[in-house]
Amino acid sequence: MRGRFITLEGGEGAGKSTLARGLAGTLEKRGIEVVVTREPGGTSNAEAIRALLVDGAVERWSPMGEALLLYAAREDHVRILIEPALKAGKWVISDRFADSTTAYQVAAGGLPRATVENLHRHVLGGFQPDLTFVVDLDPQIGIQRTIARGEGATRFEQQPASFHGALRAEFVAIAQREPRRCAVLDGRAAPEELLKQALDLISERLGAIHGG
Amino acid sequence: MRGRFITLEGGEGAGKSTLARGLAGTLEKRGIEVVVTREPGGTSNAEAIRALLVDGAVERWSPMGEALLLYAAREDHVRILIEPALKAGKWVISDRFADSTTAYQVAAGGLPRATVENLHRHVLGGFQPDLTFVVDLDPQIGIQRTIARGEGATRFEQQPASFHGALRAEFVAIAQREPRRCAVLDGRAAPEELLKQALDLISERLGAIHGG
Repeated sequence: MRGRFITLEGGEGAGKSTLARGLAGTLEKRGIEVVVTREPGGTSNAEAIRALLVDGAVERWSPMGEALLLYAAREDHVRILIEPALKAGKWVISDRFADSTTAYQVAAGGLPRATVENLHRHVLGGFQPDLTFVVDLDPQIGIQRTIARGEGATRFEQQPASFHGALRAEFVAIAQREPRRCAVLDGRAAPEELLKQALDLISERLGAIHGG
Repeated sequence: MRGRFITLEGGEGAGKSTLARGLAGTLEKRGIEVVVTREPGGTSNAEAIRALLVDGAVERWSPMGEALLLYAAREDHVRILIEPALKAGKWVISDRFADSTTAYQVAAGGLPRATVENLHRHVLGGFQPDLTFVVDLDPQIGIQRTIARGEGATRFEQQPASFHGALRAEFVAIAQREPRRCAVLDGRAAPEELLKQALDLISERLGAIHGG
């Protein structure tokens, strides 16, 4: 039986990585094999592309250049890691996926939405997550969290407040446009509360994880 | 007055780099400012992508992954180097450009042609070279030349003869499909003869280089 593909989306410091680890731990206790991964990255080729994307000046790439690099990484990630894991019955949890390209390069970067939709269709066909959690949080709180945990500011964290505001609005808009695939979680909740809400939504939407 | 964009296409060892240098030398003597560049590469960002493409195993990337990386590099190359040079009245000569993606990833790699045409349109709109020379040569001779000049075999040179045969046929087919933009040169000709033929074609098609 094919596994399920769950993606976590949202701004920096929203709690996606913690949630990914929590979900994996709980699902594994219920007998499900879980692969936790991230974008950009997840395979050695995609991590090499990630290095090009996260290093360097804010204006290093155009939004179009970023979208092309992200889809080159994503194609490798899906083909080499995600799709084979799903076929083997494993569940895959990815910290970011295609919605981040829509939020960062389209809504915040100004690339036409049709360009990214077209790219997705040509590169991945109809491949989409089974369930996407949008962890919604005021970007000011998110960035304070990333600074507090000692991470250096990335290219994207150096962007102005308007950029982060556009990102946040777009993630919520994506969830509103695709309510069957997406659910919005409140990033202000404590990690254990966020995990509980996510597990309830998994049971409700994907079923079959209780007593597995 | 806007400069002209000339691209050189063909298999490995066909004589493209020598021709590029010869053309630049002659055009400069006629008072034209010339920028000689290459693909993949030409800007620091695009050269970083080139390193991902030329290093590693033959099967490191899928043809789709290669096409995306090539267009990420090309977008940077056109935006940062080629288009500003043309606007400043300089002529740009590029050792390979978009036709190489059609030959390598479509004809030899099996990617749908529509995918690359679509990518080109979304990334570069109608941007095309003013003149393209396809330097046609038996791939066996070409590869012997690259070995003779001491270059290590690249990922593409390690491909089987059928791959190189498909490449050669496609470059000639591109020139036949777009006879106004393209001209085929015989790669067996001596370098000075190849240069003379190319200069004659430049005069004929682009004009205005005699006695400049």
